[in-house]
Amino acid sequence: MDRLDAMLENVRSFVREREWESFHDPKNLAMAIASEAGELCAELRWVSNAEADAFLTDADARRRVVDELADVAICMFMLADRVGVDVPEIVADKLARIRDRYPVELTRGRADVPPKR
Amino acid sequence: MDRLDAMLENVRSFVREREWESFHDPKNLAMAIASEAGELCAELRWVSNAEADAFLTDADARRRVVDELADVAICMFMLADRVGVDVPEIVADKLARIRDRYPVELTRGRADVPPKR
Amino acid sequence: MDRLDAMLENVRSFVREREWESFHDPKNLAMAIASEAGELCAELRWVSNAEADAFLTDADARRRVVDELADVAICMFMLADRVGVDVPEIVADKLARIRDRYPVELTRGRADVPPKR
Amino acid sequence: MDRLDAMLENVRSFVREREWESFHDPKNLAMAIASEAGELCAELRWVSNAEADAFLTDADARRRVVDELADVAICMFMLADRVGVDVPEIVADKLARIRDRYPVELTRGRADVPPKR
Repeated sequence: MDRLDAMLENVRSFVREREWESFHDPKNLAMAIASEAGELCAELRWVSNAEADAFLTDADARRRVVDELADVAICMFMLADRVGVDVPEIVADKLARIRDRYPVELTRGRADVPPKR
Repeated sequence: MDRLDAMLENVRSFVREREWESFHDPKNLAMAIASEAGELCAELRWVSNAEADAFLTDADARRRVVDELADVAICMFMLADRVGVDVPEIVADKLARIRDRYPVELTRGRADVPPKR
Repeated sequence: MDRLDAMLENVRSFVREREWESFHDPKNLAMAIASEAGELCAELRWVSNAEADAFLTDADARRRVVDELADVAICMFMLADRVGVDVPEIVADKLARIRDRYPVELTRGRADVPPKR
Repeated sequence: MDRLDAMLENVRSFVREREWESFHDPKNLAMAIASEAGELCAELRWVSNAEADAFLTDADARRRVVDELADVAICMFMLADRVGVDVPEIVADKLARIRDRYPVELTRGRADVPPKR
């Protein structure tokens, strides 16, 4: 079993043992992702861009940020699983499309170029 | 290379080719996750829990939801990479802790039991 | 002074007394809104649509939801103030535009009609 | 009628004319707030703190940010109305509590002081 499948089996058994499948419809899981994303933002909202990387070298701050990031990841994998999609596959598909929409020659070093439609 | 490492290399090269590393500090990536989580919620906000699974059987709805889910996944992996953590590892660590905080005998079939501290 | 102006003065003095203006740039306040929105979602993510109104009749649940809603409101007014816009004015302007984009005859009782462009 | 009551009546009639009350339970409105907060973050995620105020002097950027801020405000007032609370009242109540939890002498010029419990 590869690392991703082992992780997914861990996520699934956590849910199955608690019989939480009925709570995990796509709407609730999308809301859970927004909730965890909000808690992640709470850790970084008053930290400036200039200090953000250095902030993460503090052990306690890092532990809190990584904790919230793990929550986002878990809810994201739960939703992918509920919808029946494979995360590496949808990521590869999306990256292929945004590589086209953000051509290197137009977007190099710039974040303000609108995507090509 | 396992599937996860191949996916990460794809994410990294997308960023590196566009020289977007300076935009991808932890603060901006946390904000990007919240942004994509919000767009995911936009697809499901008026769909009821009772209809949410069925909603995802519509090809067009499914394509839009999966598209936003892929964006959440990409930003989540970008942040994990920036912070220098391995997603399966932080997920395994977090699941181990919440397995303790949500004991099966107290939480089976219930989403309203507060976590043990 | 009308009720809204009194409330704004209260928000402003809270910030001014703590000399927090330097933290309250538009980016940080947008991130704070997402953070508080996420905490609001945390209270309701496992509650079904069918039970959501009844859930709010529980005094403790209501107190927590109203507490998070107040946080969203405070951050929203802080951002409006920083940007220099009047909330009733931007709400009136936006409602006028979405009244046109969601014509009553097309959208009555339906949440799945895309807006007119 | 004061400005706030006039605004609320405008929000209510927008919903009532479209018979959207059944979609506007507290769960869906919390999710709508997260969705609009995410779209607001989308406008500012790659803008640095140092440039955020200046960014808002660009007419087009300002129009987009104010547009998303209005959406957050509308959904926030819709939820307050559904729950049956008055926004200035819950804001005043919350500010009174956080004035105690963030004493001026401890928090002046600092965003990293944890709240008193």
